[in-house]
Amino acid sequence: MPLNFVIPQLNSTLRAALQTKIDQKTKPLGSLGQLESLALQVGLCQNSLTPRLNKPCVLIFAGDHGIVESGVSAYPQTVTAQMVANFLDGGAAISVFARQHDIELLIVDAGVNADLSSHPKLIDAKIDKGTRNFLTQPAMTAEECTKAMQAGADQVFRQYESGCNCIGFGEMGIGNTSSAAMLMHRLTGLSLVRCVGRGTGLNDGQLQHKLVVLQRALNKHKDATEPLDVLATFGGFEIAMMVGAYLKAAELGMLILVDGFIAGTALLVASKLHPHVLDYCVFSHVSSEQGHQALLNQFNAKPLLNLELRLGEGSGIALAYPLLQSAVVFLNEMATFAEAGVDH
Amino acid sequence: MPLNFVIPQLNSTLRAALQTKIDQKTKPLGSLGQLESLALQVGLCQNSLTPRLNKPCVLIFAGDHGIVESGVSAYPQTVTAQMVANFLDGGAAISVFARQHDIELLIVDAGVNADLSSHPKLIDAKIDKGTRNFLTQPAMTAEECTKAMQAGADQVFRQYESGCNCIGFGEMGIGNTSSAAMLMHRLTGLSLVRCVGRGTGLNDGQLQHKLVVLQRALNKHKDATEPLDVLATFGGFEIAMMVGAYLKAAELGMLILVDGFIAGTALLVASKLHPHVLDYCVFSHVSSEQGHQALLNQFNAKPLLNLELRLGEGSGIALAYPLLQSAVVFLNEMATFAEAGVDH
Repeated sequence: MPLNFVIPQLNSTLRAALQTKIDQKTKPLGSLGQLESLALQVGLCQNSLTPRLNKPCVLIFAGDHGIVESGVSAYPQTVTAQMVANFLDGGAAISVFARQHDIELLIVDAGVNADLSSHPKLIDAKIDKGTRNFLTQPAMTAEECTKAMQAGADQVFRQYESGCNCIGFGEMGIGNTSSAAMLMHRLTGLSLVRCVGRGTGLNDGQLQHKLVVLQRALNKHKDATEPLDVLATFGGFEIAMMVGAYLKAAELGMLILVDGFIAGTALLVASKLHPHVLDYCVFSHVSSEQGHQALLNQFNAKPLLNLELRLGEGSGIALAYPLLQSAVVFLNEMATFAEAGVDH
Repeated sequence: MPLNFVIPQLNSTLRAALQTKIDQKTKPLGSLGQLESLALQVGLCQNSLTPRLNKPCVLIFAGDHGIVESGVSAYPQTVTAQMVANFLDGGAAISVFARQHDIELLIVDAGVNADLSSHPKLIDAKIDKGTRNFLTQPAMTAEECTKAMQAGADQVFRQYESGCNCIGFGEMGIGNTSSAAMLMHRLTGLSLVRCVGRGTGLNDGQLQHKLVVLQRALNKHKDATEPLDVLATFGGFEIAMMVGAYLKAAELGMLILVDGFIAGTALLVASKLHPHVLDYCVFSHVSSEQGHQALLNQFNAKPLLNLELRLGEGSGIALAYPLLQSAVVFLNEMATFAEAGVDH
């Protein structure tokens, strides 16, 4: 049974009042550039002239991938579980960036191929110990896919209930750029070669092998064309959870920070199901993974950062978060021309 | 008598050790992109494997411009002093962004055409109540120019003595995009039309008038070609102070955050005098003011942000500062593969 999400359309009646508020601030018209459109978006999402960012949170969904056995990644599958431990120990990039900006960081075991020790910041939502190899069979069943989406939605709701109104989703999963590339190719029609990149750092020969493997998998599953079929066939448990997470966050009117390539393909699935999810999304960065710029173009998205990141984990979200804060801060705290007695 | 600055060349013996430290962190090689080159630069500037950012500070130099009487700005000259008051009251964009990131903000009266009330955050270094109109005579004398550069250097030294090792310079001065365009044109040889922009928001007709005025001023001062001559002839007191400030900061081995177009042309003058000043510079953003991208190209600079800002005040510095912090934080706090027990 498909999940049901109802995403509210933005109430645009506040648009003119927000624009007037922005234009009355002591600065030349439009001179804060992209921060101004961001402030407008945040105000519309929260239906408020004085929006606030409360309890920002990054959820990292982690899962393993059957396709790894076909040699598509530069790193062994063991790294997924090891990196989860690193997130929890505070030593990963996202750990230090989240700490820098006081962003809550939680890890969701969506389907890591290991028995993970319990930890206050680790949420057990394991569907299975990794997906099946989509070279030979669908990565997951329709039931598993629904269950994963529901779990992602549940985790977002839990944060919402605790007072969070601004959330982002990161991922960890050796092999998941392969899943992401397949989702992008099948759902956009862009050529496979434009969607497949080097992931954690494949060399030319390895990249060529990845392309061959993925092309064979495409031929195997010609019939998977509907978004949820494509997700179940080629996706990962962490990707399916992110799809549910995006949709639930938008349903709840939360502001969503979007990370890089893999997070972007989960959003692609979500937006094929409910296009209005995009109204709530702030695109944190364009990564240097092949395909990400083309994916952003599908959303007509202008990302906040372009730092040639290609790390995942939600790292781009944490790095862009202060810019989102700045948009809110200028809207709420800058003086108007009248207040400051500045001629214009 | 020209001022004397001695800018130390970077000690590159630490380069390999810094690169190794970066590469051992738990992330695919190079996957933090531009943050990695930034971490390397900060380490080299501080000659340390564990660099720190201490007491970050933005100095805003404010001054008025005689050329304004020739109708080159969309705003009246009174706005310079009014905006100084707004900075001090905490209502300007830079005020709120500096507060957001705990950056010390000080305003230097380089030559505002008003008697400013004293304030704990306002430093009186007024050379005169605005420059002369360079359409008819040099904006300042050689002595005034030297005095302004020295004042800028002195303010940097004062911050250095108080423990600051990371500094940026903003400016406020109605009419100063005209000065900046003239400096850029004369010192780079790029056509005037590539250097002149809309500033605070000129319309097409006003922009055309600005170009005509500036072309006439160029014809008037054909002989000004040496950097300090060009600075005295076309510059502003706030711009000359920034030139001295950049050079002093580099001499002291401080990390320098560079703001937008006007701040960039001050750096252009500084770099013509002492090219090694650029080693200490982090370029915060590329603005949407005409000429800024071409100016950055002169420095081979890749800025951190591209948000279509065009505000000045050091606003780009404050917005980019958290990225500089992130570069330091990942270098110091991320776990290595060995520490975290992650395979690679």
